[in-house]
Amino acid sequence: MTDYTAPLRDITFSMFEVFDYQHHYETRFQGADVNPELIGVILEEFGRFCSEQLSPLNAVGDREGCTWNGGEVTTPTGFKEAYQQYVAGGWPALAGDPQYGGQGLPESLSIILTEMRGTANWAWGMYPGLSHGAVNTIKSHGSEEQKAVFLQKLVEGHWTGTMCLTEAHCGTDLGMLRTKADPCADGSYSITGTKIFISSGEHDLTENIVHIVLARLPDAPVGVKGISLFIIPKHLVNDDGSLGDRNALHCGSLEHKMGIHGNATCVMNFDGATGFLLGEPNRGLEAMFTFMNTARIGTALQGVAHMELGYQKALAYAKDRLQMRSVTGPKNPSGPADPIIVHPDVRRMLLTQKALSEGGRMMITYTGKLVDVIEHATDEQDRRAAEDMMSFMTPVAKAFLTETGFESANLALQCFGGHGYIKEWGVEQNVRDARIATIYEGTTGIQALDFTGRKVLGSGGELLRNFTKEIHLFCKENAQNDALKHFITPLMALNQKWADLTLHIGTKALENADEAGAASVDYLMFSGYACLAYFWAKAALTAQQGLASGSEESDFYEAKLQTASFYYDRILPRTLVCEAGILSGAANLMSVSAEQF
Amino acid sequence: MTDYTAPLRDITFSMFEVFDYQHHYETRFQGADVNPELIGVILEEFGRFCSEQLSPLNAVGDREGCTWNGGEVTTPTGFKEAYQQYVAGGWPALAGDPQYGGQGLPESLSIILTEMRGTANWAWGMYPGLSHGAVNTIKSHGSEEQKAVFLQKLVEGHWTGTMCLTEAHCGTDLGMLRTKADPCADGSYSITGTKIFISSGEHDLTENIVHIVLARLPDAPVGVKGISLFIIPKHLVNDDGSLGDRNALHCGSLEHKMGIHGNATCVMNFDGATGFLLGEPNRGLEAMFTFMNTARIGTALQGVAHMELGYQKALAYAKDRLQMRSVTGPKNPSGPADPIIVHPDVRRMLLTQKALSEGGRMMITYTGKLVDVIEHATDEQDRRAAEDMMSFMTPVAKAFLTETGFESANLALQCFGGHGYIKEWGVEQNVRDARIATIYEGTTGIQALDFTGRKVLGSGGELLRNFTKEIHLFCKENAQNDALKHFITPLMALNQKWADLTLHIGTKALENADEAGAASVDYLMFSGYACLAYFWAKAALTAQQGLASGSEESDFYEAKLQTASFYYDRILPRTLVCEAGILSGAANLMSVSAEQF
Repeated sequence: MTDYTAPLRDITFSMFEVFDYQHHYETRFQGADVNPELIGVILEEFGRFCSEQLSPLNAVGDREGCTWNGGEVTTPTGFKEAYQQYVAGGWPALAGDPQYGGQGLPESLSIILTEMRGTANWAWGMYPGLSHGAVNTIKSHGSEEQKAVFLQKLVEGHWTGTMCLTEAHCGTDLGMLRTKADPCADGSYSITGTKIFISSGEHDLTENIVHIVLARLPDAPVGVKGISLFIIPKHLVNDDGSLGDRNALHCGSLEHKMGIHGNATCVMNFDGATGFLLGEPNRGLEAMFTFMNTARIGTALQGVAHMELGYQKALAYAKDRLQMRSVTGPKNPSGPADPIIVHPDVRRMLLTQKALSEGGRMMITYTGKLVDVIEHATDEQDRRAAEDMMSFMTPVAKAFLTETGFESANLALQCFGGHGYIKEWGVEQNVRDARIATIYEGTTGIQALDFTGRKVLGSGGELLRNFTKEIHLFCKENAQNDALKHFITPLMALNQKWADLTLHIGTKALENADEAGAASVDYLMFSGYACLAYFWAKAALTAQQGLASGSEESDFYEAKLQTASFYYDRILPRTLVCEAGILSGAANLMSVSAEQF
Repeated sequence: MTDYTAPLRDITFSMFEVFDYQHHYETRFQGADVNPELIGVILEEFGRFCSEQLSPLNAVGDREGCTWNGGEVTTPTGFKEAYQQYVAGGWPALAGDPQYGGQGLPESLSIILTEMRGTANWAWGMYPGLSHGAVNTIKSHGSEEQKAVFLQKLVEGHWTGTMCLTEAHCGTDLGMLRTKADPCADGSYSITGTKIFISSGEHDLTENIVHIVLARLPDAPVGVKGISLFIIPKHLVNDDGSLGDRNALHCGSLEHKMGIHGNATCVMNFDGATGFLLGEPNRGLEAMFTFMNTARIGTALQGVAHMELGYQKALAYAKDRLQMRSVTGPKNPSGPADPIIVHPDVRRMLLTQKALSEGGRMMITYTGKLVDVIEHATDEQDRRAAEDMMSFMTPVAKAFLTETGFESANLALQCFGGHGYIKEWGVEQNVRDARIATIYEGTTGIQALDFTGRKVLGSGGELLRNFTKEIHLFCKENAQNDALKHFITPLMALNQKWADLTLHIGTKALENADEAGAASVDYLMFSGYACLAYFWAKAALTAQQGLASGSEESDFYEAKLQTASFYYDRILPRTLVCEAGILSGAANLMSVSAEQF
């Protein structure tokens, strides 16, 4: 059994059929030769790299983990060689800015490749993954000199980056951070403090590591308004670009974690390390959000990655494992039993995984288009609209896809029965690896507050209306399509309910500030299910058109229609629970005193 | 922070207040001195043993695991000493039959102690836990000689037992098993075959291990009707009761698992091992169900154990960890931030754990009473009624409490944020340990088929009606209690819907056999939530009475009322999703061909 095969057909379905990437690329990347054929070749080639190079290292990484020795960190066997091949293949630079060594291909394409990379080996993918955020942050907030020194090396993958926020006493509450930055005579800063949970903080894959670090200036105001951002390279860089002195920072230890063992999660000690102010003093948190938003989409991808990997494994096992007979008569009469895929409940588990993972991929593909527009729009209104939609979609994608990603990974394990609990099949690793995704880059609870409070209520509902209008339009356009009725009718009702619930929360929150928090996770999950309902309705329409065109892929399109039906019948009703939670209000949470718990 | 404190107040609430164990014990254990004071002393003393001896070994067991060396298995540091203390304290024999060295206390009490033992250290508890099933099986099906040889040693804990069912190619589908039993001249059998996933199959805690093994006689019919049951001791037993020859069986290797590392999961090779037929030839599977039913209740307890442990840890952390301010103003103004228990969504997670774990304990306490009646009823009709109810409740308790147990353990981890993903807090271990429970002793899917098909539809709905009648009566009795209206009104509606859905499934299943399977997990989960709704309504009534009586424990009782409200407001609506799944029918699962997936 192959461990991972890139789902190329489903990727092209989502990109080119559901979301019309051909038109998108023609409009946004005029001049650049971004056509479906080229994309196809890239996807196939990178898919092969993922299956052949990264996937076999996934179990190795879990088993060996990283090792710490006097501050040096060694990654698992094969990680370094795979990284060298990755860089030699030019993969890190694919969507990078040509000014800094990039190939200028669309970021949306890079996002899809990141899903593939992460599905094959999430822990490995986190090394190049974090560089991406560092590049975006330096590009958006760095000086010309900083860009010149750091960007090309990062874009080409010769160096990697990190994001150093968390301290032992503060994760979500960054206002409490203590790491301090003292100005030096030469304009640099001397940084002192300890950061924890630093993914890829130290490793042996590259000769240099560029840390993006939050710290406080001596005169900084207390709280979040007194945080500044610094670039602190592991090795200082000489004027000619060569590596200079080793900087005064080191990895104090590695965390022992539930999963993602192949990635080094470091305690990082900065002992008067030389750092360079990135962006404006005391505006570090805002600048850091450039990094965080990249990371949140990256983590949303992680949800899809674990769904896809689990589903591939569970599906293969369910077709292969013979156990019991179908209650409607033997389906494999010549064998000693039927494959377990004949049993209704095994199918329920598989279809849940399929509906969520393919639905999740549509959410990612939808979002990827926005990223391209934000970067390449020539029209300011256009860009603004994409930014708004992106800002709306980011917390939903991050929280919803990681919550359902963990659920889906667990269902894959369940399909294996007792064998799933044993390490050799890799499905329990998939569950352990998936578990972090609802936590890092802002927990589900934090995403829900951001979404409910800042994004939806904070925009007076406008960010939501942009999206519900799009759904409304889609429903109107297809109102006469009888074969789609099964989707359009409930989708219209859902869209209305979404608006009603939003109004309800907004009204209650005016009376009691706790009401928004009490509704937030239910509201975010409701929104996630609603988004997927829209995307599955679009997929159903596309599949219907494919079948009507007499396509030879009738199996593929029929499965899309049936998965869409499954989603509407058996997943979407979860919105009822979210609705009940929202309407039940804050009192059932807040009336118990801490002592009574 | 203590790792585990026995929740004595909640245990006595469930036993003596909600389910009137005092009356139960007075009726069923006349003559035996089973009074609340004695029970209180036992609970307290065993609680101390669990907190002080077992709980500290929980992390040790996870870290060290068991080690295999040439067929010998060494348990983690301290496991053996704790076991010796456990035996010296007389704990294994507490509810054992006095005829075989037992103390004759109620089995329901032993069940509660098992919850405590398992919460402190599930992996450790599995060693004595499996003996319990071996005792019940030999007691029910063994010859007098077999009872004389094996029972006292097992009851007193000097030996432990196992259950050897699974083979590599068959778990659920035991009809395919291949282990063979050849008759010997002396009336014993020579057993040959390989069993996998044998919990506690080999270890260093006791001098002997008694394996209860499924195998086939030479002339056995194919399938499940050709399976016989055998006792196969690790060491043969001489006529004087002393240990004789080492039997021809050995542990071939240990499985590497996601969790429960402290328990040895063994591949067991039987190479012409001497075995003794237990019960009648070819009726082994029926006899094994004595074991399985014990094991299923044991596994239901595991769900509660992980809920309780996770909740204790998460609650302590949520009161201690300072992060952000309450949106309604500082609650800890002198500190740098508020404890996270002030945040609505943290409370939502904590209350979910509290409602499920205390609700689960009520389900267990309810079931424990049935076990006592089955064992001690003097009236046959009484016993029969209890057996019916037990047979109804077993698959629900097993599947529902382990599914929600895993959910709850995960929510506990989530409360810790990034720290929960790190091994040092033990909450990620709790998640990994909990994960097996929805699989072994019959997966959730298998429990759901047993429940929906065999128990409910198979009894023409009678087993369900016994329970819904009880709920109906409770609702009628409390219909005038205005303060309980919040619970009674929805409970009555739910009870009716339960009956309606059952009729619906029964009708559809007549047309298409796949309909029962397609509805089964949703139907079982619906039933689980309905059971907890009944138990929480009873708890609310009890709490109301406690408050009305002017109790000094008003905090405790108020929290009960509020948790009941929380359950009805925010958990019970999940039945809507189950209902939608049931009503959606089998077509959305069965119409996709295996190739289309």
